[in-house]
Order: sequence, then C-alpha cells, then structure tokens
Amino acid sequence: MSIITLTTDFGAADPFVGIMKGVIAGRAPTARVIDLTHGVPPHDVLAGALILRHSVPYFPRSTIHLAVVDPGVGSERRALCVETAGTLLVGPDNGLLSLAAPRIEIRRIIHLTAEHFFLSPRSATFHGRDVFAPVAAALAAGTPVEKLGSEVRDMQRLDLPPVVREGHALRGQVIYVDHFGNLVTNVSAADLAGLTVRAPSIGIGNVRLRGVAPSYAAVQRGEPVAVVNSWGLVELAVREGSARDQLGASVGAAVVIEA
Amino acid sequence: MSIITLTTDFGAADPFVGIMKGVIAGRAPTARVIDLTHGVPPHDVLAGALILRHSVPYFPRSTIHLAVVDPGVGSERRALCVETAGTLLVGPDNGLLSLAAPRIEIRRIIHLTAEHFFLSPRSATFHGRDVFAPVAAALAAGTPVEKLGSEVRDMQRLDLPPVVREGHALRGQVIYVDHFGNLVTNVSAADLAGLTVRAPSIGIGNVRLRGVAPSYAAVQRGEPVAVVNSWGLVELAVREGSARDQLGASVGAAVVIEA
Amino acid sequence: MSIITLTTDFGAADPFVGIMKGVIAGRAPTARVIDLTHGVPPHDVLAGALILRHSVPYFPRSTIHLAVVDPGVGSERRALCVETAGTLLVGPDNGLLSLAAPRIEIRRIIHLTAEHFFLSPRSATFHGRDVFAPVAAALAAGTPVEKLGSEVRDMQRLDLPPVVREGHALRGQVIYVDHFGNLVTNVSAADLAGLTVRAPSIGIGNVRLRGVAPSYAAVQRGEPVAVVNSWGLVELAVREGSARDQLGASVGAAVVIEA
Repeated sequence: MSIITLTTDFGAADPFVGIMKGVIAGRAPTARVIDLTHGVPPHDVLAGALILRHSVPYFPRSTIHLAVVDPGVGSERRALCVETAGTLLVGPDNGLLSLAAPRIEIRRIIHLTAEHFFLSPRSATFHGRDVFAPVAAALAAGTPVEKLGSEVRDMQRLDLPPVVREGHALRGQVIYVDHFGNLVTNVSAADLAGLTVRAPSIGIGNVRLRGVAPSYAAVQRGEPVAVVNSWGLVELAVREGSARDQLGASVGAAVVIEA
Repeated sequence: MSIITLTTDFGAADPFVGIMKGVIAGRAPTARVIDLTHGVPPHDVLAGALILRHSVPYFPRSTIHLAVVDPGVGSERRALCVETAGTLLVGPDNGLLSLAAPRIEIRRIIHLTAEHFFLSPRSATFHGRDVFAPVAAALAAGTPVEKLGSEVRDMQRLDLPPVVREGHALRGQVIYVDHFGNLVTNVSAADLAGLTVRAPSIGIGNVRLRGVAPSYAAVQRGEPVAVVNSWGLVELAVREGSARDQLGASVGAAVVIEA
Repeated sequence: MSIITLTTDFGAADPFVGIMKGVIAGRAPTARVIDLTHGVPPHDVLAGALILRHSVPYFPRSTIHLAVVDPGVGSERRALCVETAGTLLVGPDNGLLSLAAPRIEIRRIIHLTAEHFFLSPRSATFHGRDVFAPVAAALAAGTPVEKLGSEVRDMQRLDLPPVVREGHALRGQVIYVDHFGNLVTNVSAADLAGLTVRAPSIGIGNVRLRGVAPSYAAVQRGEPVAVVNSWGLVELAVREGSARDQLGASVGAAVVIEA
C-alpha cells in the first residue's frame, strides 16, 4: 500500500484538496493519503519547501510526496517528479521540492510530459487536480517513474538565507512562524555548537535573551525563551503565548547571537 | 470498499466532523472517508451546493456524498438520500444536494424515515452525527437505498442566479470566492463562446479587463486577470494576490462582459 | 485494524499533525488515523478535555485516543496512557485526559517511561512526534499497555466549574464556544430536569430567554434561543447567527436559570 502525502496552500475553505483525493481514489484505490498541511501561506513556495524538508524524514521509505504551491500554474513552468534515495516528490518546478531533495540525494528528475496520465481536459488553474494528483496516483499504482516523462538534469532550487558569522557573532533571521506564533530561525543547533560561549546573548528587535533553554517551561508564562526546536533550529517563543505578537516579529526579522 | 465524502460548515475548531467519523467507523469499518471541505461558510447552503456540484464528478462511481449545511436542523425539514446515475447523496432537504443532482440524472429520492438506522437518542442540533452519518454508514455497509425510508417525488432545489444576455453583453455575478480571494462568476466558458468578440471587456466595479487570459501568469504579479477556472467558469483573480481584497468584491458583485 | 484519534491544539498551518501521522504510518502501517480536531485553542487544556469527553463515546471500543495540548512539553510533566473499560487514552499528565476518564472507569494509568518506544533523539518541543505518536502506534501494533511504562496511582484531573443551586435558581457558566458562536454551558439536561418550572428564565448578560426550545428553528433568524445541544448541555445560540458575537459572551460568562 503506497502512501501519498499532500502539501498545498489551498487552505480549508474550498474542496480543492478533497477533489485531488477523489482523483487519487479513482486511480489508485488502495493508496493512503495523508495531509501534511494545506495551510502554507498562499504562494509562499519557500514555506512549503521548508515544511517538506522537515516532514519527509518522518515518513516511511517510498512515500510519494505531492506538493502544490504553484503561483505559476498554467505558465511554462515545468511539472516534475524527483526521485531521491528514499522518496518520490511530485510538484511544480519552482523550488518547492528542492529543500527536501539535496543535490547529493537526487537519483533522477523527470519532467512530467506524458500527458496521457493527466486529466483531460486540463484546466489552466488547477494542476493539483489535473496533473499532479493523477501522476502521484500513477506512481502509487506502480507506474515506473521513467514512464512519466523525460529525464532532465536540474530543477529550480531555493536557498535559505545563510547564517552569517561575524567574529564571535552569528547573524541569522526568522524563516518560519508557526501556529503558536513561535519564531523559527535559520540558526541550527550545529551553528550554536560552534560558538565559544555556552549561554550566548540572543537578540531580536529590542529583546535580549540569555542562552538557549532546555524547554519552554524554563521560563514563566508570558516570558520569552529561546529553545532548539523539533526541526533542530533555534526558535524564539513565549511560554503559553505568541512570540510573533509579543515581539512583533515575522519572517525576515534579524536575529543576532553573540557572546 | 465504499467511499464516503463529507462536506459541512462545521469548521475545524470543534470535534463535530471527527465524531461523525467515529460513528461511521463503528458502523461501516471498511468505509473510507474523504473530507471535501468543512469550510463552507456557516449556514451557506448555496456555497455547499456549488462545492458538491463541482466535486462529485471527480470521485469514483458509487461514492456516497454526505453533506451537512443544515440551518433547519431539528425542524420539520426532511432528511434525504438522492440516488443519481453514479452517486448517492445524503443530507438535508434544503437545496444543498440539488446542484449535484440535476433532475434528469435523479433515479430516486428517499425521505430518510427509517429511524432504526439513526442514533438514539437523537439530538435536536447535530443530525450529522445522529442521522446522516449513520445513514451514510448503512449505505456503505450495503444497506439498499429503499430500506432507508420512503420514496418521494421531489426535493428542494436551488437555482444559481442566471447570466442575463442584453444585446452583445452578458450580465453575471460573483457566486463564490475561494481561499485565494479569486472571484468565481456564474459566467461559463460556454457563455463566453456565444459572444461574437474574442477579447471582450470584462467589468467588475471600476475595473475593466480585456479578454480572458490563458492563465494567471499572463499578467504581472499584483495585476488583475480573468481566466476560465477549473470549474469551467470565468474567474477574476489577481496574480499572487487577492482579487477579493484588491477589487473589494464579494459574492453577489455584478460582472459585465461586453464587446 | 486499530483506530487512533488525534486531538491537538496544533492548528492547520503547520505540518505537525502530518508528521505525527508519518510516524504512525511507519510503526503501525495498518492503523487508521482519525482527526478529532486540531483546533483546540492554543494551550487550552480544559477545552481539549471537554472535546475528548464528548467525542470518545462515539468511537468503537478499543479506539486509541491520542491527545496533545501540552504547554508543559519538555518539563517534568509525565506522559501517560490511561486505560478505561473501553478505551486507551494517550497524552500529557495535565488533566487533558481526565474528563474522558472518570475515576470509576479507569483500569490503570501507565506512566510512559519505556523510552525505547520513543523517537531518538527526542526534541524538547514536540512530544506529539517523539513520544505520543510512537506510543500510540505501538499500542495500535499490539504492544501491551504494561510494556509502555510503570503503573501509577493517579493523574492530574480537571474539574468543570460546578453548577450552583441557589433556591430555585441554577447558576452556571459558558464553558465552550463552538465554530458557529454557540455558547455551551455547564448546565446539563439533568440539571434542568431538577427545576420545578417547565419554561424557566435563562439569563446571560442583558438577555433573558424564556424556556428551552426544541430546536434552533423555534425562533426567527437572528433571534437568540436556548436549546439542549448534542452534548446534553444547555446552549445559547442565535438562529443562523453567532451568539458569541451577538450576545458578546465567551467562556466564563455567567448564566442564570430561574423560575
């Protein structure tokens, strides 16, 4: 039994995700569909790519990950299937799949050109239904990857903003804000380990925190705290509150970590 | 294995949908449940009916579509099962099922009166749990439709507002707004084909667009564009933006298409 | 085939729930996962406990209910599995599981200490992924409860605010507000039955209602109404409207029922 995960910016108000599941149910009746999230901010390809990167490792090998954050739908942007050591990724060629598919792990990239797998007629606005769901269903039903199109050499890639080392300081930024208002930065636990001080100052806006705490519970309710989160990244949080609201920060906000 | 889809205005905050799935799991353990959406605007029967109409065709034959947008719950409004050529629809008799069941496709309409299929006691506020989920589960488990109640001749029907032809102009309106803020009109691709000009003027509020574009990507980011969407309807969008917000329009807004 | 339900305050924006499902799919491939809701207000343990209490009875026996509303994640708070006559509950020891597990129905409480069931490394911020999902999967895959840790004698319990009887009056309060803005009180149908009048006055804020109606449809659109809802509790609603908005009330608002 194949697993297909779905990641989109389609939200919950419309039947778009349900329709994709209908297409899959018709073409791969035994496939199991798991929603990763449909709450990617509209058109935010980088957020979708981050979500895939930090979710794919928790799924069984051979899971098919279908992702649609696709502002270029209906244009000339390509549709892809990317095969890595353990996973198949299906989606538009706009970088969405790239963070979950490091170059070194890619086995092949297929440009999805075998139109007989697509729904017909094909709309110009909903390739999740007309292209990507049928292709994922075909994979789940056992179609070999190479039947789906022609191999290509590369795909669009996204880069996270780098963490910059300046003397004893690390300059990073907020790259993701979750439902709780936690501010996830691009500074990793490994970056921290390279610092010479054990409890560095962590600054965002006017707030300075001393060191990374073992958990949210290290501070009182309503107080800000830095932790290493479940993605292995430094996260600024407010215990039982919203760091986004309380610190007034969002994606792109600068974070400085120094002695 | 039967498929049951769920369409409601129950939202995501409460366990109401989950409870319905519990009832189904107990009575039809092998049925597969697929959410169409639970984000129908509260009490908006027409939106629910539109969603069903444009979703049902993408599901396998014999799928059971359970829908609950039910402001009359607990009143004398009837509960129905509508059998069409390919589908079973279960829900309240308030028009919700009507757009997915054109008169010509209806085989029979059953008034759900066989109360031994219902949960007991039956609440006055949640027939999704107490009436509709058990009935859908019974169908999924193989109960013949006619065992569920007595056949009736008709049901409440909804009509979409008509597109009015005035000389060379079409007067339509916005009938649905999706998660992205795209404004879906009642003007179909077929309506457009009846026009004598290839690139008509499309007006909404103070905005005039020239022609229907092949895709969102035909314009620059932030610019408005008209496309034929995945429902076969003319849609006013803003590329990577929200037409709802930018054009200040919502359901009911007039749209004029003319030479 | 085991059923695992999920109840969290994780919302829909992030992949956290999807990641938990990935962990479960890897460790209990045939388990069926049903979302109760992920819309518990952030950190609102009492709301989560209420949701579990009113949902668990609608699931088949032996269902595993996994719940994570866990402001104390990463602290010393214990992780538990609670076995009742018909159900297994898995979650943090903060009262979340208590309303669905009355003392008299508890068979045993296991403190989840068998760390070889957990993911490794274990984060300090996401025990849904690292502790609770793997444990629920182990149960679904047939691991006996007693293998998961050591039996303990009690757990944190929550109490709903009591309904106070003063002469011929009942003083209760709003304990839950649903997606529709319906105000659910702690006054039960049984409490009402103890009153000597058939149509008591029901007061909230400046509004006085006369009696409990058989359904929402007993009043005109936009009018307030009291009903006994699907949880067996007195609920203040506005027909096809929002009592929360129209009455300006929320959790904690006083409700007085008197002759």
